Amino acid sequence: MIEPIRVKADSIELLNQLLLPTTEEWVLIQTAEDTAEAIRNMVVRGAPAIGVTAAYGFAMGFRNTVADSESVLRVKKLLLSTRPTAVNLHWAVEHMVQFQKGLIGQDASLAFIRLFSEAKRVHDEDRQMNQTIGRYGLDLFTDKCSYDVLTHCNAGSLATGGYGTALGMIYSLHEAGKLGMVFVDETRPYLQGARLTAYELEKAGINYRVICDNMAASLMRQGKIDAVITGADRIAKNGDTANKIGTYNLAVLCSFHNVPLYIAAPYTTLDRNIADGSEIVIEDRPAHELAWIGDRQIVPDPEKVINPSFDVTPANLIKAIVTNEGVFFHPYRF
Amino acid sequence: MIEPIRVKADSIELLNQLLLPTTEEWVLIQTAEDTAEAIRNMVVRGAPAIGVTAAYGFAMGFRNTVADSESVLRVKKLLLSTRPTAVNLHWAVEHMVQFQKGLIGQDASLAFIRLFSEAKRVHDEDRQMNQTIGRYGLDLFTDKCSYDVLTHCNAGSLATGGYGTALGMIYSLHEAGKLGMVFVDETRPYLQGARLTAYELEKAGINYRVICDNMAASLMRQGKIDAVITGADRIAKNGDTANKIGTYNLAVLCSFHNVPLYIAAPYTTLDRNIADGSEIVIEDRPAHELAWIGDRQIVPDPEKVINPSFDVTPANLIKAIVTNEGVFFHPYRF
Repeated sequence: MIEPIRVKADSIELLNQLLLPTTEEWVLIQTAEDTAEAIRNMVVRGAPAIGVTAAYGFAMGFRNTVADSESVLRVKKLLLSTRPTAVNLHWAVEHMVQFQKGLIGQDASLAFIRLFSEAKRVHDEDRQMNQTIGRYGLDLFTDKCSYDVLTHCNAGSLATGGYGTALGMIYSLHEAGKLGMVFVDETRPYLQGARLTAYELEKAGINYRVICDNMAASLMRQGKIDAVITGADRIAKNGDTANKIGTYNLAVLCSFHNVPLYIAAPYTTLDRNIADGSEIVIEDRPAHELAWIGDRQIVPDPEKVINPSFDVTPANLIKAIVTNEGVFFHPYRF
Repeated sequence: MIEPIRVKADSIELLNQLLLPTTEEWVLIQTAEDTAEAIRNMVVRGAPAIGVTAAYGFAMGFRNTVADSESVLRVKKLLLSTRPTAVNLHWAVEHMVQFQKGLIGQDASLAFIRLFSEAKRVHDEDRQMNQTIGRYGLDLFTDKCSYDVLTHCNAGSLATGGYGTALGMIYSLHEAGKLGMVFVDETRPYLQGARLTAYELEKAGINYRVICDNMAASLMRQGKIDAVITGADRIAKNGDTANKIGTYNLAVLCSFHNVPLYIAAPYTTLDRNIADGSEIVIEDRPAHELAWIGDRQIVPDPEKVINPSFDVTPANLIKAIVTNEGVFFHPYRF
């Protein structure tokens, strides 16, 4: 299985996700500055993958430098500035800052080794959490020998420390010998499904077909889809789920065709401060993501587009939410 | 309003739809050979627009040539070979062949003038039919002052002799002062909505926004869409309707959100030989249409895609079918 972060002795390599699926380029990351640049340029993407990368980046900020309060603050600020609103990034950097406090007074090279090891632990923990999600998810697939599933966007190995959440469930089905075909929504406008999910599945030797987002309905009507599995950006206390634009479309199709929709996400995706989906503000993404594909302008006026980053699926359309703390069913009481 | 065919004294110009929406190029068409090439290369597309173009093409085949059975057969074959299965093309060429029979014995230059005039008549008839559809459609919009509608693909002026079917209804709403916003599905994979419908609406000074096909659900949930209007490729005897892939997705969304779906089409789109949608064979389009956008490959393996050209919407999900013979409601008895 392809992973977005290759760990070396005291540095990492990132798979340049900007060039996928046609070019595989590994970018050597040796410093906190390299890390910040890679996150900013979207060489690495996906909230958990960014968090793990930042943990390594923090460690590499102290390869040859004794950590003092000034340098810690500088590295912390550098990394957080890349994506000011990213929750996992914040968590990972803050975690490393706290961990570093336990190393004060240690020899610089020893401290670096311990910081780098801690980043590896954060990394492993994320991968293992996804494997746990995948294992729990298997409980939902007991009545047939083989399942054809559909996924949207990329909630895969490439978006995390490894294995993935929604794709983790799919890998887990594959390992259990219960996976038939995976239909991959291309996921306009950013094409994460076509570019990243299809690439991952290709690498893993899993049967898949890429479809346009508007084709899932027709496949469901033909009875070709047994379940839809997606990730989540944020889950409200009642189970309403914000995820990549198009997820709600699938939820309606699932409801109409009586196909189960499963959401796979770390338990930490649950935001207890939000009672329900109506409190989730839908942010707009830049128009150019929709208006151009590569160098090609596909609309007459690039300003006359609407490009919401995600939509909100009401809890009652979600058959189950699969987390590393277990599987939850509607009505949701986490 | 932009039209795809500009009629000159004894020739036509076609708007090169391959270069839209960024470049407006008019291609001069003076002969039957020019016409065949333009149809084959998709400079002109849309079944009615191709039919009208072919009628002019047939006429131009006899600008300087006396029509005899040999030359008539040659021009007929040349034009039909461009799209062997296109119904409107067949109809238009056959109509011109029959019309030509009435001109036998006439002076060549006079015969050409009459043939060219007949092509103009075919052209005007198509435009007027669409205007009739638009007028009938207005009866469906009586309870509000202003309607925000969504359309899919391009069933517009550019696809016809002028005015369009689905877009004809929208132009008609606009002329009646009852049109608010038009949401335009980009319509993957060929992007007819983003490239062509948006271009038409821009030219007509109508308010519009292009969205990705997966965004309509979210807009409907927010109550932003009052009606969905699309064209039709083929309508079965019971009202089941084949149209551009993604239409059935919209039909399900409409049903779930209680938004009316209207189909606009010439009465001739009704195929009485087909009892219902189950008899309609769904043809696949070439993989490259989905796998590449311009020069950019967006999937890892261009063979691992599914690209059906259309889907079938069951009659019970269609609120009304608007034709030049009047408006029909479910259950359909044409």
